[in-house]
Amino acid sequence: MEIRVHGPGEEPRPLAVTMRTPGSDFELAVGFLLAEGLLSGPADLDTVAYCVGPEGIQQYNVVTVRLRAPVGDRLRARNVLTTSACGVCGAASIDDIATHAPPVGSGPEVRTEVLHGLTEVLGGAQRAFGATGGVHAAARFGPTGDLRAVREDVGRHNALDKLVGHATLAGALPLTDDVLLVSGRLSFELVQKAAVAGIPVVCAIGAPSNLAVATAERFGQTVVAFLRDGRANIYSHPERIVGP
Amino acid sequence: MEIRVHGPGEEPRPLAVTMRTPGSDFELAVGFLLAEGLLSGPADLDTVAYCVGPEGIQQYNVVTVRLRAPVGDRLRARNVLTTSACGVCGAASIDDIATHAPPVGSGPEVRTEVLHGLTEVLGGAQRAFGATGGVHAAARFGPTGDLRAVREDVGRHNALDKLVGHATLAGALPLTDDVLLVSGRLSFELVQKAAVAGIPVVCAIGAPSNLAVATAERFGQTVVAFLRDGRANIYSHPERIVGP
Repeated sequence: MEIRVHGPGEEPRPLAVTMRTPGSDFELAVGFLLAEGLLSGPADLDTVAYCVGPEGIQQYNVVTVRLRAPVGDRLRARNVLTTSACGVCGAASIDDIATHAPPVGSGPEVRTEVLHGLTEVLGGAQRAFGATGGVHAAARFGPTGDLRAVREDVGRHNALDKLVGHATLAGALPLTDDVLLVSGRLSFELVQKAAVAGIPVVCAIGAPSNLAVATAERFGQTVVAFLRDGRANIYSHPERIVGP
Repeated sequence: MEIRVHGPGEEPRPLAVTMRTPGSDFELAVGFLLAEGLLSGPADLDTVAYCVGPEGIQQYNVVTVRLRAPVGDRLRARNVLTTSACGVCGAASIDDIATHAPPVGSGPEVRTEVLHGLTEVLGGAQRAFGATGGVHAAARFGPTGDLRAVREDVGRHNALDKLVGHATLAGALPLTDDVLLVSGRLSFELVQKAAVAGIPVVCAIGAPSNLAVATAERFGQTVVAFLRDGRANIYSHPERIVGP
């Protein structure tokens, strides 16, 4: 799916193409724009629509987001081919894609037995995974383990974008007492996307990367990973986790 | 790691930046270039080197590949921002990134009991996974299950690029009787990379995507997925698999 963005008086510009599982397409587009810093809430949105092709046929693989304010030069340089000047190093590249968001709030306390119950709830909610065995999920829980929303996608980053896009459209940001659970590994991009949405507790069934943990430290987020089989590792800000 | 490429009389141009696990960096660069159609064997290579920065310090996150022939306009347009013309649809985008390679050869016959033994061998060879629980692997086996090479990386596409890059530098292409096993899901990009290397049998511990299977059909490859716990599904060209 291609995501395009524009504002008043601007032609739509391509922002990204993602290999996604169809469904929740508008949420995906909105969540992606939020993570990119192009919008901060539903008030910034004018319309979200499928593109209409030359013969008047809707193109369900192209979503155009129209913002109330001009996009101007706020599009992040995501193109290695044209922006990567000679001499750029890996560190500079990561700086380029680092998101600038305020630290998350103090957030809730979460009991360890609540954490251990999340994976079973997620498993029961993964309808597409149940049918295919091949898609990721991201879910929002309250601090006592109540499931708030779940989204699935072949790409783990898309699943989180859909989840956050849904919350954005519902006017629920910032998600100050949310516990996020992702079905796979935890990348720094997932941590960043959670930070932009204000999520204080980020859990993963799989492993975290070093950079994911460092990013969570920077944003003040609690990272719990390898959350499965009644075990878990806490990697950052353990003060929000209580219990044995 | 940033991969740059150039030929005689050309300045190095950035080709891609990938979030990789350090190690086998030159193999990664060579495997990536092979998959991109920029080289077909070691004879096309002049040098592969880490970049040297302004103060004469090697930059281990920048690898420059110098080819014997000019690159010219062979760099594929990987940039959505500048190449995605208005009206492009998802299908067109996939056409853009589809690799043009000949179908693989007839390949070997592989017995089902050989397939079921591969995952345990791979598990024993995944040293980085054993230490972190968080990296993917790709391994080449012979038709009787003998392990030929294994490479690991935080990204599953990188792991395969490293594996194929290693074989490329060893002058082993095409890999006409190889059985490939990847540790996760099977994407169409992985199938394409295997096809370019000539690999006829592609196995995955995880699920395949529809597009991965369609791509394997196109290249004449056998796809075996969900290969775990003594079970397996065959998705394409089952004639190479023999036994119960």
